[in-house]
Amino acid sequence: MTSTTPLSEYLAEMRRDIEDALARAVALSTAPPIISQAMRYSLLSGGKRLRPCLTLTAAEATGAPLGTAAAEARLLALPAAVAVEMIHSYSLVHDDLPAMDNDGLRRGRPTSHVVHGDGLAILAGDGLLTEAFGVIAASPPVTSRADAPLAPAPRRLRAITTLAAAAGAAGMVGGQAIDLAAAGRIPGQTVPNSDAALEEMHARKTGALIRAAATTGAILAGAADDVIRAVDDYARDLGLAFQIIDDVLDSEGSNSTLGKTAGKDAAAGKPTYVARYGAAESRRLAADCVARANASLERVGLGGRLSEIAEWSLTRRS
Amino acid sequence: MTSTTPLSEYLAEMRRDIEDALARAVALSTAPPIISQAMRYSLLSGGKRLRPCLTLTAAEATGAPLGTAAAEARLLALPAAVAVEMIHSYSLVHDDLPAMDNDGLRRGRPTSHVVHGDGLAILAGDGLLTEAFGVIAASPPVTSRADAPLAPAPRRLRAITTLAAAAGAAGMVGGQAIDLAAAGRIPGQTVPNSDAALEEMHARKTGALIRAAATTGAILAGAADDVIRAVDDYARDLGLAFQIIDDVLDSEGSNSTLGKTAGKDAAAGKPTYVARYGAAESRRLAADCVARANASLERVGLGGRLSEIAEWSLTRRS
Repeated sequence: MTSTTPLSEYLAEMRRDIEDALARAVALSTAPPIISQAMRYSLLSGGKRLRPCLTLTAAEATGAPLGTAAAEARLLALPAAVAVEMIHSYSLVHDDLPAMDNDGLRRGRPTSHVVHGDGLAILAGDGLLTEAFGVIAASPPVTSRADAPLAPAPRRLRAITTLAAAAGAAGMVGGQAIDLAAAGRIPGQTVPNSDAALEEMHARKTGALIRAAATTGAILAGAADDVIRAVDDYARDLGLAFQIIDDVLDSEGSNSTLGKTAGKDAAAGKPTYVARYGAAESRRLAADCVARANASLERVGLGGRLSEIAEWSLTRRS
Repeated sequence: MTSTTPLSEYLAEMRRDIEDALARAVALSTAPPIISQAMRYSLLSGGKRLRPCLTLTAAEATGAPLGTAAAEARLLALPAAVAVEMIHSYSLVHDDLPAMDNDGLRRGRPTSHVVHGDGLAILAGDGLLTEAFGVIAASPPVTSRADAPLAPAPRRLRAITTLAAAAGAAGMVGGQAIDLAAAGRIPGQTVPNSDAALEEMHARKTGALIRAAATTGAILAGAADDVIRAVDDYARDLGLAFQIIDDVLDSEGSNSTLGKTAGKDAAAGKPTYVARYGAAESRRLAADCVARANASLERVGLGGRLSEIAEWSLTRRS
């Protein structure tokens, strides 16, 4: 695709690659159908696929100056894209459980525990998380191309290290624990209701995985350390912009446009950007984030589609 | 330690290395204390540490013919030993949840969800599973020795692949899903009450991780494929012997000797070897497994401590 193709078409084409790769990753012919169908229910239910799109876009953008064709960079990064989306999907399944956020609607469908019961929903999440790491380590397959290029082993190990750190106790799981404590759901634990606490929670709960989505793409494409750092800085600000706009859309939206329960965070008394700053000021804060994200890219001569994704994060409707 | 040291002393010394490495792996200084203390609660609560002992023993046994000193083989395999025990620990935390087996006692202490609530227990399990893969990919550290040898990247990737397959949908998680369905806990799902179904459930739920525990040790020590296969065959039969003897001990034991709720499987109407064959015939079946396990070792000139562990599995009291 040429650089004059609209971003929406570029992302739509990328999503087709990603959907195909996700379906392959959970074909899992030797697994009991009980578990694999529960994993597929959540993984193959649509969604924006923002994170894996970021992985592939970051790989294309950082691979190009190294002389790597876009199609090859995309294939190198595809295992990480799949792994990131599997981890995102597992986190939604577990977050939606009655023991956590207790949500019954996700991507316009009943959540996993509503359909499968809590036990199998927990296991489906566990399975998605586990297979995610197997995918980067090179099994199960994510493409039908037997000759698909595979990143060298040290890069794949680094991608696994990055993803485990982002998804683990210091990242997503830790952020979810803070969120749970803030909601008064952990015996004997409280969290201060401050700007700093809100930002730490978001940085861990959603920011860390968005950063890893982008950086694992750059890592697998073979980017140099300073480029990986710039992509990380870009993704940190992009993730924050996304979170802020999510709060705004949540405050304005309906279940049908969002595909999930609208206004739920505010109703649960959770701290949100809109509750703290109002919608207009929240949008201004998000625009500041996008400006910083683009400045990080420019530092190492990047821009293009990564920059377009940042701009789009401000204008999206869902 | 010389080969004339009793097995109990050999394993006790190994356990000290393992406990030290486990504690390092969850030091996690950048994680919120809420989550890291919940992870430590379950990971650092004792237990036989059978699986990581198998990892280190397999590494020593298969490294020796390649000229690798026992101490070096042990260090090469230590990340996998830690990862295997973290995955075992996560599986117990999730299995004990009210949505699964609903057990309140484990290793002589209240289970994680009793202490932390269901939400944080789910997250603690998620954190342990996630960090396990990070440990093999080389972060966080499991030893204080800055000069500790690290297995080459392709071996570490293979260990991750092996472990993800064993713990994932075709292995442990799949076995747990079958177990849950057999207990009537999944809407619309049933499992036949047959010998074959019982064996498939155990092979996945406990067998797969025991096999991966042993084979990842051999993989990281650099063993050839035929040796890895022999270790895998050994561990498959060892795991089955362990499961059978677990059923026998469960039928004879008390909470205080087992450190967990005794007679629970039988009370829940779950199929057990003792219910099916009686205690005496079950012990004979286990002895057959151990004979097969030792024959697999002999096929590639192995024996020693691995064989002693197999013999011990029959005579252990808890």
